[in-house]
Amino acid sequence: MTKKVAVLLSEGFEEAEAVIVIDVLRRMEIEVELLSCQDRLELRSYHQIRMFADALLERRMDQLYDAVVIPGGPQATAAMAENELVVEFIRRHDRATKLICPLCSAAARVLAANKLLQGRRYVCSGDLHQEIEDGTYVAERVVEDGNLISGQGLGAAFDFAFTVAYRLTGDRTTTQEQAVHIYHENWQAPQAVH
Amino acid sequence: MTKKVAVLLSEGFEEAEAVIVIDVLRRMEIEVELLSCQDRLELRSYHQIRMFADALLERRMDQLYDAVVIPGGPQATAAMAENELVVEFIRRHDRATKLICPLCSAAARVLAANKLLQGRRYVCSGDLHQEIEDGTYVAERVVEDGNLISGQGLGAAFDFAFTVAYRLTGDRTTTQEQAVHIYHENWQAPQAVH
Repeated sequence: MTKKVAVLLSEGFEEAEAVIVIDVLRRMEIEVELLSCQDRLELRSYHQIRMFADALLERRMDQLYDAVVIPGGPQATAAMAENELVVEFIRRHDRATKLICPLCSAAARVLAANKLLQGRRYVCSGDLHQEIEDGTYVAERVVEDGNLISGQGLGAAFDFAFTVAYRLTGDRTTTQEQAVHIYHENWQAPQAVH
Repeated sequence: MTKKVAVLLSEGFEEAEAVIVIDVLRRMEIEVELLSCQDRLELRSYHQIRMFADALLERRMDQLYDAVVIPGGPQATAAMAENELVVEFIRRHDRATKLICPLCSAAARVLAANKLLQGRRYVCSGDLHQEIEDGTYVAERVVEDGNLISGQGLGAAFDFAFTVAYRLTGDRTTTQEQAVHIYHENWQAPQAVH
């Protein structure tokens, strides 16, 4: 069955982080829906690109996806941390043990700020981990702990995206082939046991 | 003086290639203008993201930028190869020895198809180089030959973007710092001599 992924976008989202993940997942034939956490579909990214989300998060609060991806971007993650719909959406997916996938500042700003890391191992960008108490910071490009897959930042976005794709599909060969196909040959599938 | 870059977009452009370059260049405080090669600003990308260009190429035919970036995407590069405005725009910038920067299929589909490689060394994606006679194919992630900077494909987009940024600014330290800042530590500045 086709896997479905929600990508949460708010004004100021880190556009390359979001677009790399969307691109890689769609290449892997995973269904991806870009959800605006605001009251409009059109959003301006961190570096001023105007893009459209596919739907409003508020219209998808009864849906269950196989993974929730949360890109970085300072303005976006600050706003998402304060957005009750976002917090409820992530918490519900986490309780259903769906994949929770924060990138860059999102693990610290959105998850830890709402006690959603719950002691799990994670990575985030810069020194943000020094400001938070929830979770155990691990300085690697991609960190997995159960259903939590976190990525360090923009330059780790391909590694992060292929890891999410691999965990969703369980298809090591196809994921590896796609990584080679787009010239990201360095990606190595993590251990099969999740 | 602030450097100005034109990124040429046409329906079906490879969104992550385009957005990685735009993101990196804007982080480097380079002025980037997204130019639609069609008659509307809103374009749909290769993997179905709706984005806006900043301006129409047809309104910028009298402008001279410091670099012209041409992302891949099969539909986009096929259309750009047939687009007289695109060919004229690139040829004029090449004659003025501004940087010409094709990524992925663009070197083969857009440049070679219009005899714009002119025997220079280049790289492009996949086996496209086997179909063309213009230029000398070099199987590296980023290939420089004078004012021509080509990138192999999506997974090489960060290396390509930082190389373009470095050639525009001449600032090795800042470029290297930005690469480290976004966790793309592997980028190495090419030799200073262009």
